[in-house]
Amino acid sequence: MTTLADHVAFLLACDRLKAVTRSTYLHDGSRPENSAEHSWHAALMAVTLAEHAPAGTDVNRVVRLLLVHDLVEIHAGNLHFAAPEAEHAAQAQAEEQAAHALYGLLPEAQRAEFHALRAEFEARATPEARFARALDALQPVLLTWGGDGLGCAAREPDLTAARVLRLKEGALRDFPALWTLAQDVVARAVASGTLPA
Amino acid sequence: MTTLADHVAFLLACDRLKAVTRSTYLHDGSRPENSAEHSWHAALMAVTLAEHAPAGTDVNRVVRLLLVHDLVEIHAGNLHFAAPEAEHAAQAQAEEQAAHALYGLLPEAQRAEFHALRAEFEARATPEARFARALDALQPVLLTWGGDGLGCAAREPDLTAARVLRLKEGALRDFPALWTLAQDVVARAVASGTLPA
Repeated sequence: MTTLADHVAFLLACDRLKAVTRSTYLHDGSRPENSAEHSWHAALMAVTLAEHAPAGTDVNRVVRLLLVHDLVEIHAGNLHFAAPEAEHAAQAQAEEQAAHALYGLLPEAQRAEFHALRAEFEARATPEARFARALDALQPVLLTWGGDGLGCAAREPDLTAARVLRLKEGALRDFPALWTLAQDVVARAVASGTLPA
Repeated sequence: MTTLADHVAFLLACDRLKAVTRSTYLHDGSRPENSAEHSWHAALMAVTLAEHAPAGTDVNRVVRLLLVHDLVEIHAGNLHFAAPEAEHAAQAQAEEQAAHALYGLLPEAQRAEFHALRAEFEARATPEARFARALDALQPVLLTWGGDGLGCAAREPDLTAARVLRLKEGALRDFPALWTLAQDVVARAVASGTLPA
């Protein structure tokens, strides 16, 4: 029961991810997305787009990586993908501390499991981490400019198609179909006037 | 590319799960939870509480079941767990139609996969579906009355501990540790005055 009490404390702390606001808005533009919703959506993308993972990729592992990849934001907050490099470095340090605070609530065995998932995601070394990061990068592109997406020109007037693609290329270029999709979505947004070239 | 376009249409339709409001509030009582957040939290519970699944349970399958279990609410809405039986029957029919509308957006092969996940969850026949349903039932109990939970007496003055346990028992009693946890959480809520006996 002691162990289960630790699990409950952890799961209730995780509830706060629902209050971490992202810069991405829902597809209908009604409000900013939060990081819990984003994590769910990215995990659902892994299930849906599994065929685009290289052969041998463990998609179940990808799903787990995505379910937990933003948990540290509970303490560290969400950083805009186009933030300056220095802010990304500070964020990485804050997230490291956050991981110890949050995963410290868990029983020992699981603490290691969650730290391992986070380390794998950050290191980008496994096929699973690389596919997870590709989906993590693609999800806001789809929400913002996919389908009849409204874009974000009113909120982020300085964001250009060239800059979006430059910032997304690292995560996506190893997945040709997904990278082509992102480029296509961005090109359509430029054509429709929702994203400056 | 046609297939990928179908995937994008499906994933953007799924975005609307973030606008489906549940009767459960976030643990801090700040606002109602939505079904996308709930799905993420329940899937995270499967990873966290995996040791409480019977030996041989495929926890990765449980995670998938929970990621998609509420998708039909995009068309059918969310029903309160204490709603009358007649409303549950009408909801089941609405969800069946919703599944065909939503999964119809997917390429053929995946359409079958998503229908199979839904059928498995609804039939409660596999260990995976039963564990998924137990977590689905436990999650709002933890949010509402777990830890320093605020309860929901102001919103639902007629809800009693006896009724909560009667409605949760079917999903939870096969998982002794989780069922004991739920009973304990409810007993503490009664003791602290956040839930009438």
